[in-house]
Amino acid sequence: MTAISVADAKYALALCDRIAAHTDVPGTITRTFLSPATRDVHALLTAEMRALGMTVRTDSAGNLRGLYPADAPEAPVLLLGSHIDTVPNAGRYDGILGVAVPLALLRAINGKRLPFAIEIIAFSEEEGIRFKLPFIGSRALIGELGPDELARTDADGITLAQAIRNFGLDPANLADAAITPDTFTFLEVHIEQGPLLESLSLPLGIVEAIVAQSRFELTFSGQANHAGTTPMDLRRDALTAAAAFISSVEALACSTRGLVATVGVIHALPGAPNIIPGTVTCSLDIRHADDAIRDSNAGQLLAQVTADCLRRGIGVTIRETSTQRSMPMDVALAGALAEAVSRTGRQPHRMNSGAGHDAMMLAGKIPSAMLFLRTPGGLSHHPDESVALPDVQAALETCMRLLETLTH
Amino acid sequence: MTAISVADAKYALALCDRIAAHTDVPGTITRTFLSPATRDVHALLTAEMRALGMTVRTDSAGNLRGLYPADAPEAPVLLLGSHIDTVPNAGRYDGILGVAVPLALLRAINGKRLPFAIEIIAFSEEEGIRFKLPFIGSRALIGELGPDELARTDADGITLAQAIRNFGLDPANLADAAITPDTFTFLEVHIEQGPLLESLSLPLGIVEAIVAQSRFELTFSGQANHAGTTPMDLRRDALTAAAAFISSVEALACSTRGLVATVGVIHALPGAPNIIPGTVTCSLDIRHADDAIRDSNAGQLLAQVTADCLRRGIGVTIRETSTQRSMPMDVALAGALAEAVSRTGRQPHRMNSGAGHDAMMLAGKIPSAMLFLRTPGGLSHHPDESVALPDVQAALETCMRLLETLTH
Repeated sequence: MTAISVADAKYALALCDRIAAHTDVPGTITRTFLSPATRDVHALLTAEMRALGMTVRTDSAGNLRGLYPADAPEAPVLLLGSHIDTVPNAGRYDGILGVAVPLALLRAINGKRLPFAIEIIAFSEEEGIRFKLPFIGSRALIGELGPDELARTDADGITLAQAIRNFGLDPANLADAAITPDTFTFLEVHIEQGPLLESLSLPLGIVEAIVAQSRFELTFSGQANHAGTTPMDLRRDALTAAAAFISSVEALACSTRGLVATVGVIHALPGAPNIIPGTVTCSLDIRHADDAIRDSNAGQLLAQVTADCLRRGIGVTIRETSTQRSMPMDVALAGALAEAVSRTGRQPHRMNSGAGHDAMMLAGKIPSAMLFLRTPGGLSHHPDESVALPDVQAALETCMRLLETLTH
Repeated sequence: MTAISVADAKYALALCDRIAAHTDVPGTITRTFLSPATRDVHALLTAEMRALGMTVRTDSAGNLRGLYPADAPEAPVLLLGSHIDTVPNAGRYDGILGVAVPLALLRAINGKRLPFAIEIIAFSEEEGIRFKLPFIGSRALIGELGPDELARTDADGITLAQAIRNFGLDPANLADAAITPDTFTFLEVHIEQGPLLESLSLPLGIVEAIVAQSRFELTFSGQANHAGTTPMDLRRDALTAAAAFISSVEALACSTRGLVATVGVIHALPGAPNIIPGTVTCSLDIRHADDAIRDSNAGQLLAQVTADCLRRGIGVTIRETSTQRSMPMDVALAGALAEAVSRTGRQPHRMNSGAGHDAMMLAGKIPSAMLFLRTPGGLSHHPDESVALPDVQAALETCMRLLETLTH
C-alpha cells in the first residue's frame, strides 16, 4: 500500500510532545476527565484531524472522534484509538501514543481512500482518577455509562453528569457515543508499560488477553486522640491497622506467582503529627491473569484485614470500586496482527496485558486487538516514560500491513 | 478573697462554646495560626477582656494579651493563659479552657484590685499545624522566635513572617512579645487530655514535669510505576517501606514502658489506585519522661528504617522537625498549687504531662506551673472532647486560693 517513513514516526512522537504541554498541573503532565487542558488537546487534535481530511465531533461522553471516509458510502468502519487522560504526574505516551500512531498512519496514507472508513477516537477517560471510575470513555461506546455512573462525584462533589455539562455536552445524549453496527474492528496501539518486551529485545507485542483486575477502597475507623497522653494499650490507631494491611498485601503478592497487588492511595485523618489517626482510607488494586486466583487472593487479604481489625478494635469497611474480568482479545484479529508484524520482518510476541485498557471494554462488543510497544525500563505512569523512534516506526509499519490485510 | 459560683464556671464553658463557633473549616473546629477565624476570636476575647476592666493588645507574634491592673503602679505581673489555635477537627477545650478559666476568675474577682497585675494571654499558636512548628506564641515570649523560624513556610509557601504581616502585624517588632522582668509567675490551666485523672476519680492534677518529645519527618523515595505491569520483585514501593516503618514504631512503643510513638501524618505520591507510590512522607512523634530513653528509642527506630530501606532499594531521609527536652515545673509554685487544691477540700494529685504545653517554654524563664482538669474518656484532639462543670468550678476555686496565697 504505502511505505512508512521516519518522518511519520517523528510526527507521532512530536504530537505526543505537543499534547504533553497541556496539563492541569503546571510542571507535570496531569490531565483528568474533561479538564480545561483536555479542551486544549481537543482543539489541537481537531486541527490535526481536519488537516488529514477527517470530519470531527465530540460525543456526549467527551470522546473526540475523527472520521476518515471510505472510498464508497456506507462502508464499514475500522476504529483506532486510545485515551488522552493521564494519571497524576504522568509520562507522555500512555494512551496518547494510541491516538498519535493512527494519525501518523493517516499521514502516511496521504489521502488515499480505502474500502472502509477509519474512525480515530481519543477516549476522554481511562485512568479512573477523577471519579475513581476507569474507562468512562469506552464504557459510553458499549452502553455501560448509565445513571449509577453519572451520579458519581469527584473530590469537589461534582457529579459525572455535571462534569459533562460543564464541558458543554449533554449526558442525556450519551447514545451518540455508542458504537454503530458498521464498526467492524477496534485496534488499540499502546506502550507495554512493563519490562517484558525489553527483556526479550523485541519492539512489539500482540496482546492475547487483558488480565483481571479488582479495585477496592478500604476505610479503617479508629479513634483520633492525643499522641502524647494516650498510652499505647488504649489506642485505636487507624493508621497502624492500615500499615499492617499494606504489609500483608505486599507479603501475599510476593509469595503468589503472577499476582500483583498495590496500595496506591492512602489518606489519614485528621492528619497532624501529634494526633493518632482516627480514620484512614486506602485503595487496593489486585490483578492476576486467572480470575479465580485473583478472587481467592483478594478474598484472603480482605478476610485477614477484617480479622486483624477486629483484634485491634478498629472498624473496617471494604467497598469494591471496580472489577474487570479477564478479557481475551479476538483470536483472528490477533492472528492477523501477528502476521502483520512478521511481514515487517520482525518477530511477533504474544503476551498478556497486566494493565487494563479501553480494548478490554470494546472486546465484549466487537473484535478487538492490541499492539504493544516496548517500554524502556518498563517505566510508565512516570514523567520519564519513553518510547524509541524505531519502535514507533515498527508499529506504524505493522498497522499499514494490517490495513492491507483488511483491504484484501 | 471571693467565692466561686456555678455561674462563673458556666461563664467559662459558654466562652469555650462561643470561641468554638469560629473555625477555618465549617462543620469542624479548626483554627490554625492567624487564620481569619483567629481574628474573630480576638474580637470576641477583646470585648470580654475590656468588659472585665482589662487593656488589650496583640503582640507581634499574634498573641492576644489583656492586662488587669494591680492596686498600685509598677506592681509585679501574674501571667495566666493558654493557646487558642487548634488541631484539625478539634474539641473546644484544649488550650481554650486555659484562657476561659482566667477570664472567669476575673469575673469572680469582680473589679477588686490585687497587689499584682494579672495578664491573660491567648497564645496564637501551640499545636504546630500550619508551619509544622509548635509553640510559636510562647517562643516569642522567651525570645526564641528568630529568623530561622520566621523563614518557615506553610503548605501554600507563605512564610511565618508573611503570615504575621498578613494579619496586620510586623515581625520586626517581635521584641514586644517578650516577657518583662516584672512578670513573676506563669500558670497554665489545661485539660489533661489523657485518662489518668478519670481513672483515679480526681478532678484536678498538678503537673510536675512535661515529658520530652521529638518530632521527625521521614521521606521515602522509591519509583512510581504501573501497578498492573510491574512485577512485585521489580518494585521500589515507597508505601510498603513506610508501612513497615509504621509497624516497627507501634511494636517498639508497645514493648517499651512509658514510651508513646505516633505516625499521625502520611502522604503518598502520586496517589492513584493504579500507580505504585514513588514518594511517601510521614511524621514521627515520640515521647518519654526520660530524655535518654526517648533519644535511644528514636535512634533505634531510625536506624531500623534506614537498614530496611537499604534492603528494599528505597531512599529515606530523616529530618528532626522539633525536639523538646523534659521540662520540670517550678517546685515551689507546684507546691503552692497543690496546697490550693487541698484548701478547696479536694485531693491534689501530682503527675507528668505527656503532651507539650506553652508552660514548657515559659518554665525556662520564669517559675511556671500547670493545673490539669480531668478529661472524660481521656478523649482529646477530637470533636467529642469534654470537661465537666464541677471540675471547672474546682479549677476556679483552686486558682482563687492560689491568688490568695500570692496576695499574702
